[in-house]
Amino acid sequence: MRIREATADDWPAIWPFFRTIVAAGETYTYPQDLDEAAGRGLWMQEPPGRTLVAVDEDGTVLGSAKMGPNHMGRGAHIANASFMVDPDSGRKGVGRALGEHVLRLARQDGYRAMQFNAVVETNTRAVALWKSLGFDIVGTLHEGFEHPEHGFVGLHIMYRLL
Amino acid sequence: MRIREATADDWPAIWPFFRTIVAAGETYTYPQDLDEAAGRGLWMQEPPGRTLVAVDEDGTVLGSAKMGPNHMGRGAHIANASFMVDPDSGRKGVGRALGEHVLRLARQDGYRAMQFNAVVETNTRAVALWKSLGFDIVGTLHEGFEHPEHGFVGLHIMYRLL
Repeated sequence: MRIREATADDWPAIWPFFRTIVAAGETYTYPQDLDEAAGRGLWMQEPPGRTLVAVDEDGTVLGSAKMGPNHMGRGAHIANASFMVDPDSGRKGVGRALGEHVLRLARQDGYRAMQFNAVVETNTRAVALWKSLGFDIVGTLHEGFEHPEHGFVGLHIMYRLL
Repeated sequence: MRIREATADDWPAIWPFFRTIVAAGETYTYPQDLDEAAGRGLWMQEPPGRTLVAVDEDGTVLGSAKMGPNHMGRGAHIANASFMVDPDSGRKGVGRALGEHVLRLARQDGYRAMQFNAVVETNTRAVALWKSLGFDIVGTLHEGFEHPEHGFVGLHIMYRLL
């Protein structure tokens, strides 16, 4: 597995699993029915943001991440990042590899901290992964997410200094 | 004092204190040097967002607030709001009146919660005001704000159910 900057040519390989994950409505606050153009607009970043892909030896896209400033002005040293792994490539360490890469890049880009705004509390694998990468749950928005199966559940805000 | 929906005609009365507050760099994460068009774009909301003004008997604008969804999709029931009070009209209860009005409107618009993303911890009057209106500090982003006088200070995330 290799992680590199995404180009516009990668989007057609990202969109199928992006759409599947968003349509499930279990882990993202994106509109579940967003169309491809809206998805591209949310995911493919312009500088100073970055979009990355994890690819295997054949060049198949296994997952993707995006990162950029989470606040402006005097809070612009806080980065944000989001991650999508193709469900067909789950449990292979793709999310962890993307997370570690994004943390390195964020330090390199001069950020001092990273914040995740909305980690669904029932997404326990993601919560555990981010904790293992040094993030703390600094707060929870009670009833912040309407889960299609579990009803109103919390949204964790996760954070770490870099 | 009366609170009403802002129109485009109110912007010229908002911009002077908006600019002063943003340029001070003590309470907002907006770029300190933003120009009038960028300020208008950040402040004057399109539906489902709202922008409000507090005006006195003469129609003078004393302060303003904006509100709208803070998340999308299955988190879209969380509202966000921001407040600016003309420093020349401070300590007259304008912020509190705007806050109470925004909470009423948010309930009326069907939101279930309200979240403030970045309350600078040294802005103790704002923190006390929001606490008195039922908000809790659910988390703090340590060193999340580079204060021009105090250096890196925390950014509180404040939240309440409606």
